[in-house]
Amino acid sequence: MRFDIVTIFPEFFGGPPNNGILGHGILERALRIGQAEAHTHDLRSFTYDRHRTVDDRPFGGGEGMVLKAQPIFECVESLGIAPKAERDTTRESVILLSAQGKRFTQATARHLAKLDRVVLICGRYEGVDERVSQLLCDDELSIGDYVLSGGELGAAVIVDAVVRLLPGVLGHADSSKYESFGEGDEPTDTMTEDGVPRSTHGSGGLLDYPHYTRPSEFRGTTIPEVLGNGDHSVIRKWRRQAALAKTLANRPDLLPSADLNDNDRAFLNKLGFNRKH
Amino acid sequence: MRFDIVTIFPEFFGGPPNNGILGHGILERALRIGQAEAHTHDLRSFTYDRHRTVDDRPFGGGEGMVLKAQPIFECVESLGIAPKAERDTTRESVILLSAQGKRFTQATARHLAKLDRVVLICGRYEGVDERVSQLLCDDELSIGDYVLSGGELGAAVIVDAVVRLLPGVLGHADSSKYESFGEGDEPTDTMTEDGVPRSTHGSGGLLDYPHYTRPSEFRGTTIPEVLGNGDHSVIRKWRRQAALAKTLANRPDLLPSADLNDNDRAFLNKLGFNRKH
Repeated sequence: MRFDIVTIFPEFFGGPPNNGILGHGILERALRIGQAEAHTHDLRSFTYDRHRTVDDRPFGGGEGMVLKAQPIFECVESLGIAPKAERDTTRESVILLSAQGKRFTQATARHLAKLDRVVLICGRYEGVDERVSQLLCDDELSIGDYVLSGGELGAAVIVDAVVRLLPGVLGHADSSKYESFGEGDEPTDTMTEDGVPRSTHGSGGLLDYPHYTRPSEFRGTTIPEVLGNGDHSVIRKWRRQAALAKTLANRPDLLPSADLNDNDRAFLNKLGFNRKH
Repeated sequence: MRFDIVTIFPEFFGGPPNNGILGHGILERALRIGQAEAHTHDLRSFTYDRHRTVDDRPFGGGEGMVLKAQPIFECVESLGIAPKAERDTTRESVILLSAQGKRFTQATARHLAKLDRVVLICGRYEGVDERVSQLLCDDELSIGDYVLSGGELGAAVIVDAVVRLLPGVLGHADSSKYESFGEGDEPTDTMTEDGVPRSTHGSGGLLDYPHYTRPSEFRGTTIPEVLGNGDHSVIRKWRRQAALAKTLANRPDLLPSADLNDNDRAFLNKLGFNRKH
């Protein structure tokens, strides 16, 4: 899989080998095993004036500068990507990062992980000429409800989230499955005798349960006793309830669409959460 | 304002001056004008074994490794931050980046921008010993509903979103005000004669309106005619409706809590959106 990142700050992503965002961790590993590569492209290389101007004032007035369409179009066209109308038959996607985009989620990451090529255009300044989104891009995406100075961090987030879903990139094959946001594809009807789903590792749209490692006592606080006793059905039940409690505390918005059984609902009711069903 | 980033990948953030995430754009400018500085700290410097081990197996079993509490506590303590119990009287905050956190939003950014020091702990691997969140951190935050290989990009997102809110960091003083996510603090009852709010620049919890710059015709597509005619009340109205249409298309979830007047609601109804009121 190949990523192309269009930016006015190519140095943001790296510089010398093994330095910067693209030289690290998951992407470094993906590159090494031949699963993914990421290239940056300087938008200013596609300008023709002495000042290498990439932006201009907005039509209709207002503050701030707007990234021009022409350098972005020419940069993407130089990459050998199919025109937008033909892209549903190629495994390619061109994406604009902007605060006005749809929300990037784990589902988007899974979709992108099936493609061969993804072009990420980093928005900047006050905005990007709307024709980039209309005529060149398949999607306009935002990584969250906050304002960043540009799309560079959004592009890096997408590369990271997608690359770790590619085969062989994570050290152990299963560790991308049982994490937060319902990434797991284990059937949720796999219950133990006591009615606790077998995968309690953040599956079913809940946050992951709390983790503890040695020492069992640290700064006067000990781990929950149940985690030390070796009874796996009790541990599973504790983890499920701890995941429910953590989700209720930090992300109650996830609960209405989470995969809950009767025991889960009873436990949440005890904690004061009432879900209409 | 000072940021301290605790990570096992300090090189991810920079390396040589003017390279990498922390050497660029908004943060470079904030550093130059003395408004913000960011320091990275290698978690492995706070280990005492030959392999500089920062993680260990989870109590209770399961896949993956868990970041140990001890190096993280000692790293944060080395920074001269007040203990958690005293932090409500200091303008300091210690934050764990993790997928199990509360959502980081523009409101969180505004809150953090009032502080003097923020410590950002980058989670890794399967998780972080829960005692870090319980005993050391004021908050556990997530930048979005996707799974990343670590908290480094989350820390970079928070630094960028917060730093651009500090006085003098953006080139023109007002450009952080009228953008998406209701950042603007202009009173929403400032209406023109035709009932269109004066600030139509993404205020009131809507996405920003589309921008266009020269040339007016590009690849056979012309800008909306209204933007070229110089009638500012018509332009304001067009921008407001375009912002409503874009929000409906990309982020309909924002509309129920957006600041809408009767004209806005009538326009959305025409587009097929029915808001219960």
